[in-house]
Amino acid sequence: MPQPAGIVGFRGYSGAELLRLLARHPHVEPVLLEHRRDSEDRPQPIGAQQIKRVPCTAEAAKSARLDVIFLATPADVSMQLAPALLDAGAKVIDLSGAFRLHDSAAYSRWYKEKHTAPDLLHRAVYGLPEFCRQRIRDAQLVANPGCYPTAANLAIQPLIAAGAIDRASGIVCDAKSGVSGAGRKPSLNTSFCEVSANFSAYSALDHRHVPEVLMVSGIEEAELSFTAHLLPIDRGILETIYFRARNISSAEQLLGIYSERYDGETFVRLYPPGVLPDVRGVDRTNFCDIGLKFDPATGRAVVVSAIDNLVKGAAGQAIQNMNLMLGFEETSGLL
Amino acid sequence: MPQPAGIVGFRGYSGAELLRLLARHPHVEPVLLEHRRDSEDRPQPIGAQQIKRVPCTAEAAKSARLDVIFLATPADVSMQLAPALLDAGAKVIDLSGAFRLHDSAAYSRWYKEKHTAPDLLHRAVYGLPEFCRQRIRDAQLVANPGCYPTAANLAIQPLIAAGAIDRASGIVCDAKSGVSGAGRKPSLNTSFCEVSANFSAYSALDHRHVPEVLMVSGIEEAELSFTAHLLPIDRGILETIYFRARNISSAEQLLGIYSERYDGETFVRLYPPGVLPDVRGVDRTNFCDIGLKFDPATGRAVVVSAIDNLVKGAAGQAIQNMNLMLGFEETSGLL
Amino acid sequence: MPQPAGIVGFRGYSGAELLRLLARHPHVEPVLLEHRRDSEDRPQPIGAQQIKRVPCTAEAAKSARLDVIFLATPADVSMQLAPALLDAGAKVIDLSGAFRLHDSAAYSRWYKEKHTAPDLLHRAVYGLPEFCRQRIRDAQLVANPGCYPTAANLAIQPLIAAGAIDRASGIVCDAKSGVSGAGRKPSLNTSFCEVSANFSAYSALDHRHVPEVLMVSGIEEAELSFTAHLLPIDRGILETIYFRARNISSAEQLLGIYSERYDGETFVRLYPPGVLPDVRGVDRTNFCDIGLKFDPATGRAVVVSAIDNLVKGAAGQAIQNMNLMLGFEETSGLL
Amino acid sequence: MPQPAGIVGFRGYSGAELLRLLARHPHVEPVLLEHRRDSEDRPQPIGAQQIKRVPCTAEAAKSARLDVIFLATPADVSMQLAPALLDAGAKVIDLSGAFRLHDSAAYSRWYKEKHTAPDLLHRAVYGLPEFCRQRIRDAQLVANPGCYPTAANLAIQPLIAAGAIDRASGIVCDAKSGVSGAGRKPSLNTSFCEVSANFSAYSALDHRHVPEVLMVSGIEEAELSFTAHLLPIDRGILETIYFRARNISSAEQLLGIYSERYDGETFVRLYPPGVLPDVRGVDRTNFCDIGLKFDPATGRAVVVSAIDNLVKGAAGQAIQNMNLMLGFEETSGLL
Repeated sequence: MPQPAGIVGFRGYSGAELLRLLARHPHVEPVLLEHRRDSEDRPQPIGAQQIKRVPCTAEAAKSARLDVIFLATPADVSMQLAPALLDAGAKVIDLSGAFRLHDSAAYSRWYKEKHTAPDLLHRAVYGLPEFCRQRIRDAQLVANPGCYPTAANLAIQPLIAAGAIDRASGIVCDAKSGVSGAGRKPSLNTSFCEVSANFSAYSALDHRHVPEVLMVSGIEEAELSFTAHLLPIDRGILETIYFRARNISSAEQLLGIYSERYDGETFVRLYPPGVLPDVRGVDRTNFCDIGLKFDPATGRAVVVSAIDNLVKGAAGQAIQNMNLMLGFEETSGLL
Repeated sequence: MPQPAGIVGFRGYSGAELLRLLARHPHVEPVLLEHRRDSEDRPQPIGAQQIKRVPCTAEAAKSARLDVIFLATPADVSMQLAPALLDAGAKVIDLSGAFRLHDSAAYSRWYKEKHTAPDLLHRAVYGLPEFCRQRIRDAQLVANPGCYPTAANLAIQPLIAAGAIDRASGIVCDAKSGVSGAGRKPSLNTSFCEVSANFSAYSALDHRHVPEVLMVSGIEEAELSFTAHLLPIDRGILETIYFRARNISSAEQLLGIYSERYDGETFVRLYPPGVLPDVRGVDRTNFCDIGLKFDPATGRAVVVSAIDNLVKGAAGQAIQNMNLMLGFEETSGLL
Repeated sequence: MPQPAGIVGFRGYSGAELLRLLARHPHVEPVLLEHRRDSEDRPQPIGAQQIKRVPCTAEAAKSARLDVIFLATPADVSMQLAPALLDAGAKVIDLSGAFRLHDSAAYSRWYKEKHTAPDLLHRAVYGLPEFCRQRIRDAQLVANPGCYPTAANLAIQPLIAAGAIDRASGIVCDAKSGVSGAGRKPSLNTSFCEVSANFSAYSALDHRHVPEVLMVSGIEEAELSFTAHLLPIDRGILETIYFRARNISSAEQLLGIYSERYDGETFVRLYPPGVLPDVRGVDRTNFCDIGLKFDPATGRAVVVSAIDNLVKGAAGQAIQNMNLMLGFEETSGLL
Repeated sequence: MPQPAGIVGFRGYSGAELLRLLARHPHVEPVLLEHRRDSEDRPQPIGAQQIKRVPCTAEAAKSARLDVIFLATPADVSMQLAPALLDAGAKVIDLSGAFRLHDSAAYSRWYKEKHTAPDLLHRAVYGLPEFCRQRIRDAQLVANPGCYPTAANLAIQPLIAAGAIDRASGIVCDAKSGVSGAGRKPSLNTSFCEVSANFSAYSALDHRHVPEVLMVSGIEEAELSFTAHLLPIDRGILETIYFRARNISSAEQLLGIYSERYDGETFVRLYPPGVLPDVRGVDRTNFCDIGLKFDPATGRAVVVSAIDNLVKGAAGQAIQNMNLMLGFEETSGLL
């Protein structure tokens, strides 16, 4: 019998993606937690199967026997909801930025607002399975990683760990994302006529996802130049990462660091030297595709990392975390 | 009475843009030079005003009194056509890569083919008016710059000249272009279903436009990491340029280098520190928009440069060059 | 010396298009009337030429000597502003639906709200120059036509007038528009992620633009089936119109009705039988392109009509009306 | 053990969609039949699971024990390949137009070419399961329906059968399709720069899919006006169908005809009166969504029918047919 899993924020893009993916999950069935009507439902066909809905309260979660609850909500809502749901015994996977950083001062600096549930910060486990698998298995509260840091850390961390990057000359991460990353709430910035036939940079050097990259990849803020860009597409992230290699003499050697690190990892796919992944290749999948180009004469290297921001960058990775937390096969419902 | 100007390759995107812009030019009227039917004409309304067409020969150019001829053709066609047209006394503005580099060895390396008119290389003037205005005025053959290098050089050269970049740690130019840059010839790479809802990197570290940036900005290949990307939009280029600043303590100081350099330049527009230009702001204009972000604590700098690849990156700049060569107001037909 | 023309609602898409077009107008210069901050200004380059701004009051309009004022505002704002501006002696061109219908009952039925300036309805002249040129010249208040009805009436009215349509079997107008027709105010319906990779029908049989088609083309509601659709493009309208022809034996004969009717009309362009216009052909122009297909064996006919909804469907047509009202060449600033 | 199913034309969009869908099918595994290299393969990640490939010959099909073979090929290729594959004992599901019409004269008229395998025409069963389920179960050769006719017939046929349409005044089917319907072969018509920010009509009154609608819905050519349009989206079809209703007094009554007809049909979904389906609602699904608007005062009716052209309009319906032919659950691999 499938196990019920609650979703708060099911009308947003990450929430809807959770629903889409869980519909195929062999062991879990979604339950909608009505928090507040943030946006309209899409029209439903006559006779469409109704998914169970309960109010978003600790009591309702308990009586619906929700062992796990996804918060696909803005950070302030997550901070408000998480404590009671955890107290009621549910495992919580939060897709917002609320619990990703380790202290409330960092949170205030990058998110420009006070953290309202600081006691939970030390209990939260960062949900990047390829790096924190064991701790996720035992976690009660998982902070699902940001979309940009997922693509960045999977590409940068192995090279840093292997000492293959000349950190002194800096790492550039030029990141581009589809519009769904900005959420479903209408705004001028995400209006069709403003985004279509356009392309723009934003949050140069001060994007709130930067501290997640520093934290996981183990580099200093001064070493990383990160700029986000808005692509006129619905979904998908591609990051182009530049650095000078250290103690590396060939593209194959660089690639070898990845293939060793990701041996056995289902969701990281590598490409032959010189073949660069694109957004379409990871569309609606939980894969992170990595490819690279290297110039042995000068040591210049370019790594390209691509994910679907709503899957490996949000809902898919959240389900990967759920699979670990509930003891299912890690890839259940994701292939 | 308007002066006739010939266009070879008028069915391509750059050629069509030349036609669109020249239709508004106060002193010039276009004449179409039929070279070969590379692609279909668009259907015309009944009674549409027909533009004069002559065969693409030196004789026809002479009898049509074409003092200036635009070659909106692939490099191999430009190399084939230019000698006779120049001999016939016409001034030639070539929009291809045929005459941009100074020697045939460099051409062979970057374009992977032999140069078939090497004698013209030393006569060609690089047509970036903001840097070579005087020489363009006297030129008989102008090599119109590549789209990517136009946006790159206008952003990089002033800072290099001012010694404001720490060249040792490298310059990254992450460049993104709309699809029209690839020309009108049908190919899988530019098919709607392959490009839409997609985004991809290409020519990492070895794009053929790289040598133009090295040449104009005066940097070494080892100092520049350039990667091109294909945006799912029709037209527009945005380049995000990363470097460590040298002897710079504020964004205003960095901006000051540009405002001093571009004082009096109509087609370069600067934005206040922290305001980054976008593709839509330069759509169908001959402007290059430049904005920047600077972190004084670490010296990290990001410069964003945006142009319309078909205007300042091709046809508009070609007309700017024509205006200089024929003694018109430099901005004629371009505002 | 250019004559000042006021624009209320200059931050919206129609208002911005008025600005873009008036910047090229030889006899007029725009003045911005600050009504209320409906949305953000786009960032401006340093040193950009500032357009004159005055408050949106009758007094300010008078002291700025605004002989003509464009209202690019929602209908309720236009009804509120028009009376005082007219009293102050200005000619008013209203781009909303406020003054297009002849009586307030019709307005209430189609716009689902009470008309708050019903006294102006009989003074307003419907601003479709191809049909009401003389009356527009003498008008003080012009109701600029809706975008859909402009494309529909230019295609339908000549055939109705010529008795070429079998009205008993009905006329179908299947209309498709780009997103800018819905205005700049953010809403879920016009969000990038909802519109992109999508296509939808709306207002089937009850679109508020229907009465304009009935009024101008002289047909009954029961004879017309009109459905609007939202295209995932920024701008452009294409309408496919179906009917059974009457007393028509060839496509040429059908086309002849148009060519006779539009002889001398600059802004209506006709295509040879079987050649159908598209949205791109009218992009950023004031043209209405018309083409058709006819099956003599069965009398079935298809007419396709295309305009740019922001130009011939809004700002361009408004300037065409202004040209008539102020005694300029009708095409001034529009070619 | 999964049963092998062959795919010819697996590099095209329909072929790739077959692969994507069969990857999830519980009882079948795809085998690629190499016919000729029509276009490039996409780059593959290192270690990607290779799908079995065999030459496209009757012998290879036999030794690979391919009981069923999908032809996702152009009509001329299907006509060439089908006879030998059938002779070799395979069941064939052809996605082209080769075997949809019942006689070779009709084929010549609509496809403008001679039929080269006319003997197969009487053996082919039209593969629209909602109408021909029993015959499909027993077929050896299934002609998978065209994308446009699938959406049209599911909407029109039930109303014709119920006598609910006033046929004398005609039926209009205004059909719009995404670009993938045109196939993967590069052409100017499907180039990104020609399609994006554009919308156009084509094949007005003479589209080759028209005879399938006449055949299945049982109407005369003179009664149907069909025009196709090209949407600037990757995939999806929406058809807006207009007619005068007969003996119908309410939207509910009209809807009742559909709900009775499609009772128990998984892949046809109906919407409440006035709610119109859109392309996004059927994206990557095998559903056909139908909604309608009715005006009781005048009898005017509008029905909107939406499918994904690559799924219910091609690969999904082909798999639905395969499920019937091989005795699987009809919905296997499609929900």
